[in-house]
Amino acid sequence: MDVFNCDLMHSHVLIEVFTTEIAVHKIDIALAQLDTPFLYVDKPQFLRNIRRMKEKIEGHKVELRTHFKTLKSLEGAPYLYQDKASPITVSTLKEAEALAEDGYKNLTYAVGIAPQKLPRVKSLISKGTNLSILLDSMSQAAAVSSFCKDNNCDIPVWIEIDCDNHRAGIKPESSDLLEVANILYKGDVTIRGVLTHAGGSYACSTPDQLLKAANEEKNSVIFAASRLKDAGIPCPYTSIGSTPTALSYADLTGITEVRAGVFPFFDLVMAGIGVCEISEIALSVVTTVIGYNAEKNWLLIDAGWMALSRDRGTSSQQRDCGYGLVCDFDGHVIDSLYVDGANQEHGIIVSTDGYDMSSIKVGTKLRILPNHACATAGMHLNYQVIDKDSDSHEVWNRILGW
Amino acid sequence: MDVFNCDLMHSHVLIEVFTTEIAVHKIDIALAQLDTPFLYVDKPQFLRNIRRMKEKIEGHKVELRTHFKTLKSLEGAPYLYQDKASPITVSTLKEAEALAEDGYKNLTYAVGIAPQKLPRVKSLISKGTNLSILLDSMSQAAAVSSFCKDNNCDIPVWIEIDCDNHRAGIKPESSDLLEVANILYKGDVTIRGVLTHAGGSYACSTPDQLLKAANEEKNSVIFAASRLKDAGIPCPYTSIGSTPTALSYADLTGITEVRAGVFPFFDLVMAGIGVCEISEIALSVVTTVIGYNAEKNWLLIDAGWMALSRDRGTSSQQRDCGYGLVCDFDGHVIDSLYVDGANQEHGIIVSTDGYDMSSIKVGTKLRILPNHACATAGMHLNYQVIDKDSDSHEVWNRILGW
Repeated sequence: MDVFNCDLMHSHVLIEVFTTEIAVHKIDIALAQLDTPFLYVDKPQFLRNIRRMKEKIEGHKVELRTHFKTLKSLEGAPYLYQDKASPITVSTLKEAEALAEDGYKNLTYAVGIAPQKLPRVKSLISKGTNLSILLDSMSQAAAVSSFCKDNNCDIPVWIEIDCDNHRAGIKPESSDLLEVANILYKGDVTIRGVLTHAGGSYACSTPDQLLKAANEEKNSVIFAASRLKDAGIPCPYTSIGSTPTALSYADLTGITEVRAGVFPFFDLVMAGIGVCEISEIALSVVTTVIGYNAEKNWLLIDAGWMALSRDRGTSSQQRDCGYGLVCDFDGHVIDSLYVDGANQEHGIIVSTDGYDMSSIKVGTKLRILPNHACATAGMHLNYQVIDKDSDSHEVWNRILGW
Repeated sequence: MDVFNCDLMHSHVLIEVFTTEIAVHKIDIALAQLDTPFLYVDKPQFLRNIRRMKEKIEGHKVELRTHFKTLKSLEGAPYLYQDKASPITVSTLKEAEALAEDGYKNLTYAVGIAPQKLPRVKSLISKGTNLSILLDSMSQAAAVSSFCKDNNCDIPVWIEIDCDNHRAGIKPESSDLLEVANILYKGDVTIRGVLTHAGGSYACSTPDQLLKAANEEKNSVIFAASRLKDAGIPCPYTSIGSTPTALSYADLTGITEVRAGVFPFFDLVMAGIGVCEISEIALSVVTTVIGYNAEKNWLLIDAGWMALSRDRGTSSQQRDCGYGLVCDFDGHVIDSLYVDGANQEHGIIVSTDGYDMSSIKVGTKLRILPNHACATAGMHLNYQVIDKDSDSHEVWNRILGW
């Protein structure tokens, strides 16, 4: 039983008493006081991951429009974005509204627009936010054009391009591209440019596959933009990106910006694709051992899918990590252990090699590396951000809902 | 474009104007104003599902200790619990704290206790909440006993029994049962009773399998309780339950209470097990069509796994419902459609029989039935609770975090 847990209300007093006597790290005290499960961010690693991506993309003289959908935290935003004018991608209007309220000015809402959401978009634009939207159909283009006319406003639009037959977008060679662009152009709606996302890159596992996905992503928008320009329709910007392709581009001539989101944290899926090492994953879920099943050599932990998410993104990769790999409380991977099962508030840790689970006692804290950082972070209200180098602990709140 | 979406700030004025001229349903106006995705509760169905379970269990003259882990809403709690003394099961101490603050007195925290959480348990008990905890090991029993002695308090304990080799608990015939009970008994810790959960019942698909699971669940705690009593250790209560078994018991002699959680909503997993009809599912996610892929005959919707959850609970059942079945906005299932893929904010609807997806236009609102109501509800901040019979609309907030 930890003394700090017994009297949380007087923790400041305890910290003072202890620090006058022995060298106690503030973060150790803070971490001991936090009930599990919680999200742990290794801040120095988080900063290294951001630096790596910035150097990679800015080395190509291209703007990085980092996706906010993974972090979703205003306290963390200044580490992703140099200033309030920095380009940002969002996945919900709730993110856009929170960022705009905090003074960020340059936002792209990168999910195909539902016409019913245009009043919220207009409201942000009318308050001075440079917010652009995404669409890939004539009906959306007509709805936006009609809305802008009726409301005497302009909403800048990206036309989504399908680079890999993955999800959404217009094929770059399709006649629909010019038809959609013409509806917007004739409706006096600003066409910001063409945008694509190589979602298919998540299925890559070799550098050659990644380079191919990166090239297809890039070439799709360059070709789409050239078709618009040939038709006399302005298309000033070309936007591409996913974390796997963003770390794989050889050349970005013809591209104006890159979007990526999961790289500040990375995760086991990214490690499986080969764009990071497991040791570079900056996010984990801290959990406590609450049981041991001798017959099955199982550990039970207090992190189930409510804390880890139901994401099984590594299930189709060479190494299936279950619901996550297991680290000790200091973040060192314990080889051969993984979370094999998850109920709402229970996780089951098993071993691939007969590791003696009884050696990890009830009450022990462990850290679970996530399959998919976006999904795992999505289960939590906030991050506990730890910097062991400077002995600092911060809490960053997440933006929730839509 | 809906007129009500264009001017949300003046909705009350609009409602008044319209109701004086034509018969307008308040809920239709409210629903039109809500941006998707959101959680929709069909309140009359929710109430019917609760009544069914209450009649079933109370017909056996046994108490129903409904699990709060699915609903997690104080506004909804009065429909689950008759009064502030009603028995309640919780999955987190956060739920317990919220309920206690709201005056609820009779709580069981039914996840194996981590010793570090005992101060929070003690704090609730010291404020007058009858809160009991769960454990299944000697180390937990020793930690609780030691904590109670050090803090001069009592924390009532349930000993968890493993009835089906599913997750946690002590086998009813194991020598560990008496050892754990003795540690508590000698430490003057109150033993409330023995408790089990037939988690394995989720793999059932026939009434015979369900009855067998229900009997094994029941018999395991009756046997465990008899062993404790034979050893001279008081064991006044026997607690069993899961939604599938709770709806399948033939006889509950020897049982004092039943726990179940998902039944107020039900879901596709429960329908697959056979304990409800699809038409009895009271929870759905309202979403908007944001795209159509002619080549693949796909619809894109604005509900991805962030709104639906990553739960794929029906994947091992006879009918795999993908990420959920598709209903029109009035809640009628559209045969042959299901959500086949989910990204963070995108879902992909496909058809099993070549249904012409182009007939469902961009902007159309649909409702998605969840695989697992606990997981889907877990992705949202609140419920939009709709009663078409009385034309009423309420918002119920969910308790978040741990």
